[in-house]
Amino acid sequence: MITVALAKGALLRESIECFAAAGFDFRSFLEKENRQLMIPSVCGRARALLLRNADVPVYVAYGQAQIGIVGYDVLRETRSPVAQLVDLQFGECYMHIAVKASSHYKKTSDLPAHCRIASKFTHCAEEYFNRLDKPIELIALTGSVELGPITGISEAIVDLVATGRTLRDNGLVSIEKLFRSTARLIGHPLSLRLDNGELQETIDRIATISSEIEK
Amino acid sequence: MITVALAKGALLRESIECFAAAGFDFRSFLEKENRQLMIPSVCGRARALLLRNADVPVYVAYGQAQIGIVGYDVLRETRSPVAQLVDLQFGECYMHIAVKASSHYKKTSDLPAHCRIASKFTHCAEEYFNRLDKPIELIALTGSVELGPITGISEAIVDLVATGRTLRDNGLVSIEKLFRSTARLIGHPLSLRLDNGELQETIDRIATISSEIEK
Repeated sequence: MITVALAKGALLRESIECFAAAGFDFRSFLEKENRQLMIPSVCGRARALLLRNADVPVYVAYGQAQIGIVGYDVLRETRSPVAQLVDLQFGECYMHIAVKASSHYKKTSDLPAHCRIASKFTHCAEEYFNRLDKPIELIALTGSVELGPITGISEAIVDLVATGRTLRDNGLVSIEKLFRSTARLIGHPLSLRLDNGELQETIDRIATISSEIEK
Repeated sequence: MITVALAKGALLRESIECFAAAGFDFRSFLEKENRQLMIPSVCGRARALLLRNADVPVYVAYGQAQIGIVGYDVLRETRSPVAQLVDLQFGECYMHIAVKASSHYKKTSDLPAHCRIASKFTHCAEEYFNRLDKPIELIALTGSVELGPITGISEAIVDLVATGRTLRDNGLVSIEKLFRSTARLIGHPLSLRLDNGELQETIDRIATISSEIEK
């Protein structure tokens, strides 16, 4: 029995489509009245866990789920010891540094040393500014990071941007794009090594479907 | 101008009622179509920020909000350098250790050394087991912690329980109650020291209302 870790939210529909292509039907997670967090596939050969984004790599790293789908942003932030198997290309977004539109900071190098950066992605932000050798004060927030520059708690934010609407609605502009994020199929390294073929078959099917969609 | 930090979710309605008693009307946060994260009070003498639970003490600790309302569980977990001003008594819940109902662990001392504990409240869990001198392996999750014992990623969970319904629905039972949590009025220490009377008046009004409701 394969256990699959799926992320709630923006990636869920397409993640379920990927597994449908591999023969596993988890569509009941999409029903509005669904309250279940663990469901078997219709075929009975797999089950899926419905998790918050950041918990997907935890379940896969511990081998409680053998495979899962999660955004590259989460993998980069959590630095989880999981195998990245396929770039599924959907769920595209970018990690940005943004400031108030009225700010005189036009590029990252304009930001003063020891400036305050608010983010849900503190490891990503720290890594970036360390590489620039610019000391910053990180403010870890868990949501609505766009309030940072508006309230004045931080000069800038490091946050994930999909359509750019949240930035615009809050009078913020990007001054730097850090990296691109897309959904990734990930696996538990030990389960992959001990696999008798079943896991690899699922991975291959998802990889094939994914590359066909790309064309 | 006073800035007030309010937590989204279970505490919001009663938090807004507290500030209404102090003369500040933030009821537009309760409107279904509200998308704003920062609103002025109707009187114009204050504004409120609508934040995620864990971000309330961050804004108050940095002085971006002078006062705020948040659960004691969050204060205990985040160990923020804020002043606890009033125990508002609403939003009551308890931090529990829970295991599967079918488990043979009937009390905390039954849990084996190096057992796995899943929690969103890793500091609270660590503090508790350190005091017992019992080494554990902590698994930090961000949501749906009740899946821990069900999937087998952990033997037990440390989680906040209000009605107990989530535990029951997932076949879990509490084996220990760690502490009680209620909503707390918190303040920024420096703002309180520099206050010209306006903050203290607000705090006094909320404290009076709160003690009246208690009777």
